[in-house]
Amino acid sequence: MSEIRPVKIYNSLSGKKEVFEPLTPGRIGMYVCGPTVYNDVHLGNCRTFVSFDVIYRYLMHIGYKVRYVRNITDVGHLLDDGEDRMAKGARLDQLEPMEVAQKYTVGFHDIMRILNTLPPSIEPRATGHIPEQIEMVQAILDRGYAYAINGSVYFDVSKFAKENPSVYGRLSGRVIDELLAESRENLKNQDEKKHSADFAIWIKASEEHIMRWNSAWSVGFPGWHLECSAMSTKYLGKTFDIHGGGGDLKFPHHENEVAQNHGSCGCQPANYWMHANMLLLNGRKMSKSEGNTIAPTELFTGDSPFVTKGYSPMVVNFLC
Amino acid sequence: MSEIRPVKIYNSLSGKKEVFEPLTPGRIGMYVCGPTVYNDVHLGNCRTFVSFDVIYRYLMHIGYKVRYVRNITDVGHLLDDGEDRMAKGARLDQLEPMEVAQKYTVGFHDIMRILNTLPPSIEPRATGHIPEQIEMVQAILDRGYAYAINGSVYFDVSKFAKENPSVYGRLSGRVIDELLAESRENLKNQDEKKHSADFAIWIKASEEHIMRWNSAWSVGFPGWHLECSAMSTKYLGKTFDIHGGGGDLKFPHHENEVAQNHGSCGCQPANYWMHANMLLLNGRKMSKSEGNTIAPTELFTGDSPFVTKGYSPMVVNFLC
Repeated sequence: MSEIRPVKIYNSLSGKKEVFEPLTPGRIGMYVCGPTVYNDVHLGNCRTFVSFDVIYRYLMHIGYKVRYVRNITDVGHLLDDGEDRMAKGARLDQLEPMEVAQKYTVGFHDIMRILNTLPPSIEPRATGHIPEQIEMVQAILDRGYAYAINGSVYFDVSKFAKENPSVYGRLSGRVIDELLAESRENLKNQDEKKHSADFAIWIKASEEHIMRWNSAWSVGFPGWHLECSAMSTKYLGKTFDIHGGGGDLKFPHHENEVAQNHGSCGCQPANYWMHANMLLLNGRKMSKSEGNTIAPTELFTGDSPFVTKGYSPMVVNFLC
Repeated sequence: MSEIRPVKIYNSLSGKKEVFEPLTPGRIGMYVCGPTVYNDVHLGNCRTFVSFDVIYRYLMHIGYKVRYVRNITDVGHLLDDGEDRMAKGARLDQLEPMEVAQKYTVGFHDIMRILNTLPPSIEPRATGHIPEQIEMVQAILDRGYAYAINGSVYFDVSKFAKENPSVYGRLSGRVIDELLAESRENLKNQDEKKHSADFAIWIKASEEHIMRWNSAWSVGFPGWHLECSAMSTKYLGKTFDIHGGGGDLKFPHHENEVAQNHGSCGCQPANYWMHANMLLLNGRKMSKSEGNTIAPTELFTGDSPFVTKGYSPMVVNFLC
């Protein structure tokens, strides 16, 4: 194998630029948190994926063989509309979450293609990895970092943080004592959790929750953070090279991912964490909650209150 | 709801043209067997999907709300290459079937888009429905139509056929006594099956079989026919309107699907079965084993020994 030129990566885990060293010479395993497919993606989401597309292409260009895994989050939180379920007995009359997921997955792929990005090597779906997620919950329970109560299972953040003081909070810079102090504050109006810093890794499905699977604890569904831990392990191994995502995922999503991986196997998932900056619109992060999103097609056509003309997809790609 | 004009369907189950009656007024549930994504699709495969695209559009055009489910078969039979697995300890060095599946899924979607077909309403993957398949195996065992041996589970065709004489063989026109006579012939060099007409619904994974999941019977994988039974039930209900596929799937695939559905719930899966004719090239069915396949792109460019010029995708769509 010919020599691959050294490359420096800003590693969110250390807060420093580091010379990249792969686990296996000439190969890279990279996991990037993909879209949730219950809405159209907006330009801020796209920017993250365009950024990692550039990184993916660059790493291949300098000679690495890259396995790039980007998931599809299709375990949604669509609820039954509350109409009498007995009256709507026919399956075709019921809302089918996978029909919604398919619509927005197709839309997402269309936009990614128009932006001239490469498809990832593997694009695993959360609903397609329920057995793997259940096995990870069991592994965390077996190692004592989770507790089951009323059919749900929670990750025990204080116990994990106490026994692994250099792990929890390292990626996001959160101070665990502050998180736990908050917990005690909030615990008075609390539910089943021992601390409010704890998070669910398996959730018992309520009556109106449509997506549900059997498990040893309840008929339920996995916690939001779990899919990425289970799927990165399955396709890249317990420890792999690069984990990426939008900067807004650092906490709680990525911090909790690290806790789950470490909690199930005793090792760090990724050696390098890369975070794409958020897209700002007039100084504010573009997000649904800010109400300042631009859809990619609006930018291509110019049909948005925030832009005065359309731009070609390749210009948009370049500017990202 | 305004009146929908009557439509006649040639039903493979009865061998007759019948006036179509939906289970739920104004709605149709339709399942079509999709591609196996371990190879490029050829024009013969495409023709089936173009045919059902026309049917899908027509049924919507006359006023039906259609839930069109077309699966992706990604439980493949890729085997480890036999190199010392211990030596190839790193996950990234190992063949990853889902990487292969992703490549051909993307290729399939590209061709379907070029041929101007609509995506289905739901496109479920076999690997994404392992719990549902395991539950169906259990349901068939519970009803006495399967037996477990050495970690694998087989569907008991003779018992099922005896107790349900009007079901097995009806779709394909096979005579069960002939199938069972064959069985006795072949049984001398037989493996674990009681009859060679029996078929596996769960298979214990051998050492070199890469795709594998835990189950009550073994670490293994579902039989080939099972995914369609489990996924049609999940998204369309135990009995639904239309089941389609290429004519070459009638036996054994569709016959065994009917047996599995009926064996697990005691009811027919689909009321109407539609089969697309096979594409013939100079009088012979186009298939990989005949060595006479044309790839869609070859037909668009004209770069094939079987054609003298290229045709535009829309011409190809129309001629299908």
